[in-house]
Amino acid sequence: MIINTPPVFSAADYQYMSLALREAAKGLYGTSPNPRVGCVIVKDGNIVGYGAHLRAGEPHAEVHALRMAGEHAAGADAYVTLEPCSHFGRTPPCADAVVKAGVKRVVTAMQDPNPLVAGNGLRRLAEHGIEVASGLLEHEAKVLNTGFISRMTRQRPWVRSKIAASLDGKTGLNNGESKWITSPDARQHVQQWRAQSCAILTGVGTILADDPLLTVRDIDLLQKRHGVQPWRIIVDSQLRTPPSAAILQAGRVVIVHAVRLPEQERALQGAGAELLALPGEGGRVDLTAMLHGLAQRQINEVMVEAGALLNGGLLNAGLVDELLLYYAPILLGGDARNMFAMAELQSMQQKIQLQTLDTRQVGVDWFIRAKPVM
Amino acid sequence: MIINTPPVFSAADYQYMSLALREAAKGLYGTSPNPRVGCVIVKDGNIVGYGAHLRAGEPHAEVHALRMAGEHAAGADAYVTLEPCSHFGRTPPCADAVVKAGVKRVVTAMQDPNPLVAGNGLRRLAEHGIEVASGLLEHEAKVLNTGFISRMTRQRPWVRSKIAASLDGKTGLNNGESKWITSPDARQHVQQWRAQSCAILTGVGTILADDPLLTVRDIDLLQKRHGVQPWRIIVDSQLRTPPSAAILQAGRVVIVHAVRLPEQERALQGAGAELLALPGEGGRVDLTAMLHGLAQRQINEVMVEAGALLNGGLLNAGLVDELLLYYAPILLGGDARNMFAMAELQSMQQKIQLQTLDTRQVGVDWFIRAKPVM
Repeated sequence: MIINTPPVFSAADYQYMSLALREAAKGLYGTSPNPRVGCVIVKDGNIVGYGAHLRAGEPHAEVHALRMAGEHAAGADAYVTLEPCSHFGRTPPCADAVVKAGVKRVVTAMQDPNPLVAGNGLRRLAEHGIEVASGLLEHEAKVLNTGFISRMTRQRPWVRSKIAASLDGKTGLNNGESKWITSPDARQHVQQWRAQSCAILTGVGTILADDPLLTVRDIDLLQKRHGVQPWRIIVDSQLRTPPSAAILQAGRVVIVHAVRLPEQERALQGAGAELLALPGEGGRVDLTAMLHGLAQRQINEVMVEAGALLNGGLLNAGLVDELLLYYAPILLGGDARNMFAMAELQSMQQKIQLQTLDTRQVGVDWFIRAKPVM
Repeated sequence: MIINTPPVFSAADYQYMSLALREAAKGLYGTSPNPRVGCVIVKDGNIVGYGAHLRAGEPHAEVHALRMAGEHAAGADAYVTLEPCSHFGRTPPCADAVVKAGVKRVVTAMQDPNPLVAGNGLRRLAEHGIEVASGLLEHEAKVLNTGFISRMTRQRPWVRSKIAASLDGKTGLNNGESKWITSPDARQHVQQWRAQSCAILTGVGTILADDPLLTVRDIDLLQKRHGVQPWRIIVDSQLRTPPSAAILQAGRVVIVHAVRLPEQERALQGAGAELLALPGEGGRVDLTAMLHGLAQRQINEVMVEAGALLNGGLLNAGLVDELLLYYAPILLGGDARNMFAMAELQSMQQKIQLQTLDTRQVGVDWFIRAKPVM
């Protein structure tokens, strides 16, 4: 099969696919639960159509691009960042639209991450005599859809833990005071991570201490999300969240608990929360089951904004995929709060090794993005 | 007076002074307790002489440069990074040598930091009809001699605390294991800081836990120090250092203590240590008095390589001038050891604010140089 042959791509191929990726990125904040996809259609060296998927339920990238191309699509090359779909979802299969438009060649960056359907779209195209090739700028395309790929292949969302700390690794004072460790620049940076997340995960400790909203407050970012706030998920084994908590006032909230307390459950449901009982070991929430539950609810990307207990629990369970660490140029001393509460290490060989993905200055703070090496 | 007029410098002046600074830097590891000084002599647009002070007791930079220039020094411009001395020390006054050589103009980067003699050298030159100007690339010259300036103006050394930590701010496991947090690259980087220090300061806790040498092990760096190891200073209130400690085997060691225990003192003296009793509050060593004592012993730059207790104590006392922080891309968890043990903060307003001076990647680790903003 053509799609299994290592393809050779031209300089022009790279150029057009990179434009398609830039198109795809327009959906960074708005396509959930769908992936971010971009498409560019080229006829005789001219770009005749381009488009991005912008919102679930609305047309896919290929459809936007084909509409723009019109009759010029016949005999054209189409660059799509993700394999065109071959099934009926909320919209008809894109593969059929591509065939119907008379496209001559389809180049994709990556195949459908769902192993059960991967290659089906390309196969359908090939069966109609369309030349197909896949794998052009694949890594870049995958980075754009880490969460979607994670849900499709691991049945759990991609989990990013964001922590703001002092340079001595402290997130707040022993007395609970933690506003503000990092600078306004860092907090604005965090808004972007929130805005590209399907859900924000926190613990009841944070709710009780800070009563936060954990919403996207930047109006431009919220607009790119079509005004829809990320879900907020609260890990609350003992159901201690007060029904009056501010977080319950805006958007969808799921409280994941371990104990059953019918009266408190009703009160929280009455306040608008969805409840999810997932008892695990030691009276705590089963975090792995929780993430599977979120994936079942089509959550691709989760951002954790929590204290040492939940961050440590997720880390210990191997459930943190990425750390977003913001360090302020301050020191808070040994008595202040730690970043991770987790099982005490007995040997340096038990240390959690990280791979640094990115480091940069954000205002006066310093940002490190890293992933645990399992 | 000429030396108080804001001087205007030419492009050539900047060029020659920057060369003089590069000369001065050749003494980075070897001039203690003297400052690092470089000199460039220029006649009719040609460099006719240059030199650096390389070792206490040996000629000063001006003498090296004048010797090279020979008769060309007459009518030349001399660029010196530090005001020529006007007093007899271990060598005769450089100001006299400059006058004798017939130099026409002397440009200095900075005046003598000792407020009692600042300007005397330039004054002596001016009295002999030499045109003088000071302040060219002054900041750069001061950076080279932070420790010497600190000793002259504050009667205490410049104190740099070096700490190797995980990204969650931990320096070792709760059980004491701390080898190795950071990479070989970072440890080599640390050798450079050690090599430019007059003394390495540690606490008895580190001695008891790790039995370290705290010497310069890089042979090239040690050679630049003329084979002389930095002093090692141990803060040891209760005189718990064992006379068999490895650190007592090589070079000069001072143990600063609070209690008097004649027998143990004699044992440690017998093992080669110098003892310094400086009792402070609560049975602890008076750290401020200790730094004054080190300055009296002509220590310019101290590097602290210690645990949370001594680092916290120095920080709390406002005695840390600079932090050399190395972060390894690992996590050790909340139970591991903190960077600073200090009085618990009651409000975020009590946080220790830092100013970042430098950040860079060192191997896989990340280095931040910062100074507490008092």
